[in-house]
Amino acid sequence: MDIPKTMTAVVLERYGGLEGLTTASLPVPKPGPGEVLVKVAASPINPSDLSFLQGNYGIKKALPVVPGLEGSGTVVAVGSGMMGRYLMGRRVACIAPTDGNGLWADYVLTGSSLALPLNSEVDLEHGAMSVVNPLTAVAFLSLLQEGNHKVFVQTAAASALGQMVQRLATTAGITAINVVRREDQVSLLRGQGADIVLNSSDADFDGRLAALCREKGASLAFDAVGGTLSRRILTALPQGGKLIVFGGLSEEDVQISIGDLIFEKKSVEGFWLTNWIAQKNMLKLLSLWRLAQKLITDELRTAVRVGYPLEEVQTAVALYRKQMTGGKVLLVPGGSEQ
Amino acid sequence: MDIPKTMTAVVLERYGGLEGLTTASLPVPKPGPGEVLVKVAASPINPSDLSFLQGNYGIKKALPVVPGLEGSGTVVAVGSGMMGRYLMGRRVACIAPTDGNGLWADYVLTGSSLALPLNSEVDLEHGAMSVVNPLTAVAFLSLLQEGNHKVFVQTAAASALGQMVQRLATTAGITAINVVRREDQVSLLRGQGADIVLNSSDADFDGRLAALCREKGASLAFDAVGGTLSRRILTALPQGGKLIVFGGLSEEDVQISIGDLIFEKKSVEGFWLTNWIAQKNMLKLLSLWRLAQKLITDELRTAVRVGYPLEEVQTAVALYRKQMTGGKVLLVPGGSEQ
Repeated sequence: MDIPKTMTAVVLERYGGLEGLTTASLPVPKPGPGEVLVKVAASPINPSDLSFLQGNYGIKKALPVVPGLEGSGTVVAVGSGMMGRYLMGRRVACIAPTDGNGLWADYVLTGSSLALPLNSEVDLEHGAMSVVNPLTAVAFLSLLQEGNHKVFVQTAAASALGQMVQRLATTAGITAINVVRREDQVSLLRGQGADIVLNSSDADFDGRLAALCREKGASLAFDAVGGTLSRRILTALPQGGKLIVFGGLSEEDVQISIGDLIFEKKSVEGFWLTNWIAQKNMLKLLSLWRLAQKLITDELRTAVRVGYPLEEVQTAVALYRKQMTGGKVLLVPGGSEQ
Repeated sequence: MDIPKTMTAVVLERYGGLEGLTTASLPVPKPGPGEVLVKVAASPINPSDLSFLQGNYGIKKALPVVPGLEGSGTVVAVGSGMMGRYLMGRRVACIAPTDGNGLWADYVLTGSSLALPLNSEVDLEHGAMSVVNPLTAVAFLSLLQEGNHKVFVQTAAASALGQMVQRLATTAGITAINVVRREDQVSLLRGQGADIVLNSSDADFDGRLAALCREKGASLAFDAVGGTLSRRILTALPQGGKLIVFGGLSEEDVQISIGDLIFEKKSVEGFWLTNWIAQKNMLKLLSLWRLAQKLITDELRTAVRVGYPLEEVQTAVALYRKQMTGGKVLLVPGGSEQ
């Protein structure tokens, strides 16, 4: 396979907004020991990418840097190491290394342990979205099952991840109390067979949510929003309830009622896929990855709204930021052959 | 002992402020099975009383009700039950029953398990403040020791409780990083031998606190304030840090940075003495109570600023609310003989 000397890449020059994003011609990197070079097929824009662009993500890389936290492609060159040799020529899903350039480029260099081989029934387009969201959904299911929860609350339920979690939980016999912010999102989830969908903009939302949580015994909530919604959700949970924050779509601090903490034995913690993965051993992780892949082609399939070439990254990010539900926005490197 | 038919009592007629507080003549209650009647000697105003008056406390009683969550006195009548017979005539510290009138009255009726006999070296004035704060301090010490913490952060460190915790921790070889809001509170704590006292109003507070937490390995904070101070404290703790909220002096929601929760493995929970006590068995509790009493006469001695008769409850509460450090404000029923 012919690997060119240079490639087109999206470059983030400063944290904070669209203006910091441009494209440039960069040298195609060469894999060292334990590394693989992936020719990128597609890379989605996730909420975590938006956080990264703002400088609010858990990992803040030295600038300039190529963004893009996950994607798919074909391994076209490998350094030394057994895993690399195994992956050579294969179609993979991969995530960016924690200290280098990401996937919004023609090529990406990453660790061989961060590239996961795709089953033949998963195409590269869906494979591009197969790590962050599907593994997060599988992680949430694990947390629910480990805690023996039969019901839970989730915010931003109409997001790609929210839809996956809703469908995956239903399949496992666990009831999701889905919270969304707009009426069209209620219809969207109901159309997918979700039983319980509440609109936080409704006047009677807080009372209805509290009644549902009590009636069904929900004591765990996954929150991707933050701000005052966090407070409302935790207050609605019965005594002992726990809020797990995994995103900050509101771009506001999490607010918590002091009385809930002191008198109601409620608590707040966070979830980060990177930490969760680090706590799993490789064997367990691969088995969860197999489950996640099975689900990509089934319950967890995410709709794609539109693909953009790298050069139109500003348009793509702006579009996704404006409307985060309704299908994923992908970046599709021009030179890639799928 | 002659027990009158009626008594003077402070009565809360509506939650929300000083205006709801008055005094009235009420019948002196008679103890039923498992109950004791205590002739009240003194009862302090605690932050938890202020929360109760506002309707923000964990227990919201039916109105009208006599406030006053703890105090001291002499057991003058008992219902049936072995514990009651043992307590008859004794000087006790006691806390209010969860579903009846409290201690801001000439007499209080409470459960015999909620009255703890005072050692002879504890006078009734200090005995009045011997349950809520000393047991909370002992509870914090337990939590620190169970978690093997060698250092911790506490806010409102100049409060009566904060001072107790500081002195008790020092005695146990644990370092307190004390956070206060004013310069005179820095001097107060330093005068008591506190090594580390930071003023959250200082411009370089956040940086200094973070550096100290890193350097000394503090990963736990007790917070009595809430609001944005909660956020600043948790952000200063290193990865994995935990904030335990036990009061809301700011009267604002706890604010938490989403990044701290997601990327830094930090968490927030609450502490309520009532719940903590409920989790302990009687034997363990009595042994902790013995420790707490020993400490009342020693490290945990709280200064008394002033005593007021019940009729001046509004003045007393207003004074305490305005200035919560600098010695406790006590209510001292007029008919009581110490």
